[in-house]
Amino acid sequence: MSVIELNKRQEEIVEIVKGNGPITGEQIAERLSLTRATLRPDLAILTMAGFLDARPRVGYFYSGKQTGQAVAESMTNMKVKDFQSIPVVVSENISVYDAICQMFLEDVGTLFVVDKNSYLTGVLSRKDLLRTAIGSQDLNHIPVHIIMTRMPNIAYCFKTDGLIQAANKLIERQIDALPVVIEHTDGLEVIGRLTKTNITRAFLSLAENHDL
Amino acid sequence: MSVIELNKRQEEIVEIVKGNGPITGEQIAERLSLTRATLRPDLAILTMAGFLDARPRVGYFYSGKQTGQAVAESMTNMKVKDFQSIPVVVSENISVYDAICQMFLEDVGTLFVVDKNSYLTGVLSRKDLLRTAIGSQDLNHIPVHIIMTRMPNIAYCFKTDGLIQAANKLIERQIDALPVVIEHTDGLEVIGRLTKTNITRAFLSLAENHDL
Repeated sequence: MSVIELNKRQEEIVEIVKGNGPITGEQIAERLSLTRATLRPDLAILTMAGFLDARPRVGYFYSGKQTGQAVAESMTNMKVKDFQSIPVVVSENISVYDAICQMFLEDVGTLFVVDKNSYLTGVLSRKDLLRTAIGSQDLNHIPVHIIMTRMPNIAYCFKTDGLIQAANKLIERQIDALPVVIEHTDGLEVIGRLTKTNITRAFLSLAENHDL
Repeated sequence: MSVIELNKRQEEIVEIVKGNGPITGEQIAERLSLTRATLRPDLAILTMAGFLDARPRVGYFYSGKQTGQAVAESMTNMKVKDFQSIPVVVSENISVYDAICQMFLEDVGTLFVVDKNSYLTGVLSRKDLLRTAIGSQDLNHIPVHIIMTRMPNIAYCFKTDGLIQAANKLIERQIDALPVVIEHTDGLEVIGRLTKTNITRAFLSLAENHDL
């Protein structure tokens, strides 16, 4: 990706305008002990890139706006931990019926199943539960560990993973949610839940933060 | 949002470099019948903004890369029609059991319900179907029109809507999918389905198209 890297002088100019705007090009030049002509290309770049606004006969303002470039930067800086939700976990021996109730109670689309040490052993999606619900068995008598997706077939992520990477995993694995985990020597501790809703919120936050 | 608007001369420079790069600043100046000094600020801006790459003693290349600014531009230009999926529709008198089968067969999370004129009358989510499935009634004997969300409570969008706007609707209404419709005088024709999966793909396509 192409990034507009400001040089030291351009950064100084932005700081001066931030603190003193509106300020004329001459005044900026004076503060930097340079000529107006020397500054002209820098001021042009800063104005075109949207860091500064220029008003005729008034001077330069700090726009306060982020540039489009900043959108790309925000995207690469987005981490799972900035957008993850609280996980809802159930134990392996809970019945499918109770799991469905839990899902409605917590209003989530995915439940994580943990063993007695609180380590991740399975994932239950709305789809898994619906498939079981239309079967002829009594949902009160089927424990979730019979129908859940189990380790090692569970896709997961870490809170420091990039959001782009996590979104890719959701799409590739065709799943609605990833558990966010901490890796211990003897298992995975579930600390969060990353869903397509979180990605949709991230998409919107890009738009909001950059006034799109 | 701040947008780097290229002026006419800068656009000409980009075109020249596209067609003739690598090309030196002197050669560009010659083609434009200008001096190298006159072009210096323009070349600086184009290089910093990432439109051109400059290599010492070789000249200017067209980077072919999109700038970060282009990410913001892509986002505002994304339309529902660029990311929507094919809708799956069922008729109002189909049973809940058959609707669930249809949902698994088509592997979608939302079904749209239409009347005999093929106009939208309802929406069925996995959650609606799961709620009904754990009830004690026979799913073969409940028609979907009993349990569906019906007009006018259905959020929908048009194919020319901005994707940001549609994503906002998904989040605000807390739903998984929007029907994409054409408005007729006597009803809404369903032509697409816009889901959080589509938004997640859009988020990823931003990253891919801009080499993030």
